[in-house]
Amino acid sequence: MSDVIETDVVIIGAGPVGLFAVFELGLFDMKCHLVDILDRPGGQCTELYPEKPIYDIPAWPSILAQDLVDKLLEQIEPFKPTYSFNRMIAGIEQLEDGRFRLSTDDQEVIEAKVVVIAAGGGSFQPKRPPIPGIEAFENESVFYSVRRMEAFRGEDVLIVGGGDSALDWTLNLQPLARSLTLVHRRPEFRAAPDSVNKMYALQEMKKLDFEVGQVTALKGDGGKLQSATVKGPNGEVEVPCTRLLPFFGLTMKLGPISDWGLELKDNLVVVDTEKFETTRPGIFAIGDINWYPGKLKLILSGFHEAALMAQAAKRIVSPGERVVFQYTTSSTNLQKKLGVA
Amino acid sequence: MSDVIETDVVIIGAGPVGLFAVFELGLFDMKCHLVDILDRPGGQCTELYPEKPIYDIPAWPSILAQDLVDKLLEQIEPFKPTYSFNRMIAGIEQLEDGRFRLSTDDQEVIEAKVVVIAAGGGSFQPKRPPIPGIEAFENESVFYSVRRMEAFRGEDVLIVGGGDSALDWTLNLQPLARSLTLVHRRPEFRAAPDSVNKMYALQEMKKLDFEVGQVTALKGDGGKLQSATVKGPNGEVEVPCTRLLPFFGLTMKLGPISDWGLELKDNLVVVDTEKFETTRPGIFAIGDINWYPGKLKLILSGFHEAALMAQAAKRIVSPGERVVFQYTTSSTNLQKKLGVA
Repeated sequence: MSDVIETDVVIIGAGPVGLFAVFELGLFDMKCHLVDILDRPGGQCTELYPEKPIYDIPAWPSILAQDLVDKLLEQIEPFKPTYSFNRMIAGIEQLEDGRFRLSTDDQEVIEAKVVVIAAGGGSFQPKRPPIPGIEAFENESVFYSVRRMEAFRGEDVLIVGGGDSALDWTLNLQPLARSLTLVHRRPEFRAAPDSVNKMYALQEMKKLDFEVGQVTALKGDGGKLQSATVKGPNGEVEVPCTRLLPFFGLTMKLGPISDWGLELKDNLVVVDTEKFETTRPGIFAIGDINWYPGKLKLILSGFHEAALMAQAAKRIVSPGERVVFQYTTSSTNLQKKLGVA
Repeated sequence: MSDVIETDVVIIGAGPVGLFAVFELGLFDMKCHLVDILDRPGGQCTELYPEKPIYDIPAWPSILAQDLVDKLLEQIEPFKPTYSFNRMIAGIEQLEDGRFRLSTDDQEVIEAKVVVIAAGGGSFQPKRPPIPGIEAFENESVFYSVRRMEAFRGEDVLIVGGGDSALDWTLNLQPLARSLTLVHRRPEFRAAPDSVNKMYALQEMKKLDFEVGQVTALKGDGGKLQSATVKGPNGEVEVPCTRLLPFFGLTMKLGPISDWGLELKDNLVVVDTEKFETTRPGIFAIGDINWYPGKLKLILSGFHEAALMAQAAKRIVSPGERVVFQYTTSSTNLQKKLGVA
């Protein structure tokens, strides 16, 4: 087990609303640690549409989604938040002193006085392909992401999919693998043409094998994969493999948060509109993941929710201390925190 | 009486929140007319601190107040709002068909299906100086602003104050007035040094008179001013005058809105958090002027309130029509309205 990360506020989700929460909490001297299942900040803006313009961010007639994230990162820079990327919160328990102890799927432990769920549409999770019995091989022979390339060295690797992830990992793992087979249901790909060309070139050199078709069955024992049946236009072939990497895209799920005993409505976390607190005191929810009457899934609403949440969070983090509302335009105190006075 | 201005939504107050409301209402094809007591859009941002940086507008690590207003004006440009400046809403009545008829202090009449109060801290109103009986001369001989310079031609003008307004009008009215006296309680001014120098130069040339002191009494009859008593370090002098312009700064008042029968709390308009509607259906209040549990007087909260208000306003403006929530990033329909698709 790694060392425990101690913080005032743990924010689950590093999308635009989670990032802006760092700003509002920072103005009240609260230290934040963010956890995100993706490998960088920005959430859907960065993962799904970084180069799309957004037109309804107030005072930004047009801003690319990635630029919005970059501006927010610049704005929270004075508060030096810390991050755990590629991690999902797995468990939560409340300690006797009222603090929360959270654990990630990577056995990281975070202790915080306040929990803020800013998980947007939920956590991005890989789609499981419809191959009978695949669950039995997961985490032993079947993986949905590559955390350490070394785990694939000397293995017979089978990659399934036709997008950038499938092609990128085909090219990256081919030099390490004992053998590599790529399977896609058609010879056309949705990936960068350059990657596709490189893959076909490696196939020409017999350095990998590309099969058109679909994986219909897996063979192996005790989680250890031995081969996969690939059904193509010319019938079935049996492909020997010890590692399978299916890249069937991402789906969004509420994930383990659904087991925390919070009141939910249509898979959204119910909050009040005064503090944006859930039905469990000390746990707040802001942004697209929450619900209240009138709720709109707008980034600008998440910003407002973050501001009101921060007031309430401060009362938990610093009980008994007077919460003074100040303006950044006029308060030298706030300006000092922002490094501008 | 001027022609009646007909619009979908009348917005009282053209500060940042009133301006952004035009955007949110425009996305739903609602036409807006804005009324403001000031002579340009921007509200307090423009009137009180145009060159101050604001640090808590999301995705703007720092933005000058005037630049914020300019960006919002750019953002709402596709929706072509109309404006009545230098006007205060004086009266409101509800017509039989449910629409509202509003009249301004300048006898302008506006008819709208929805009223949005976005009046910030209220309307800027001049502070009345503590001179006994001054009310009796107001609007006849005593004015708190100069709407038409011609009204001062050939008059004996007395200007009181030490800020930019007092100095600017001293310099502007001196060529028209029969005589001009400036009174300020000390020889130092809070105005632009250049204006102060020009005033002292005119005094040297005997083109105006500057007295250090305070006005303690007014003489006249039937609203017509004849002279003012100025008490200075060397005693009292009687200054003949037919016009008095006191510039004692602006104060903010809720104004006539307080007589509309809306539920108030500490001079703020009580609204719900689902639609930001007041206790009178069809009248909404957003931004610093409203109150609900948790309310913070933040510009970013006003933006959120504008977005939720727009949904409810649409149901009033286009009853029976389905209100479809769409994203500017993905809806070609919205992008066409914004002129970007």
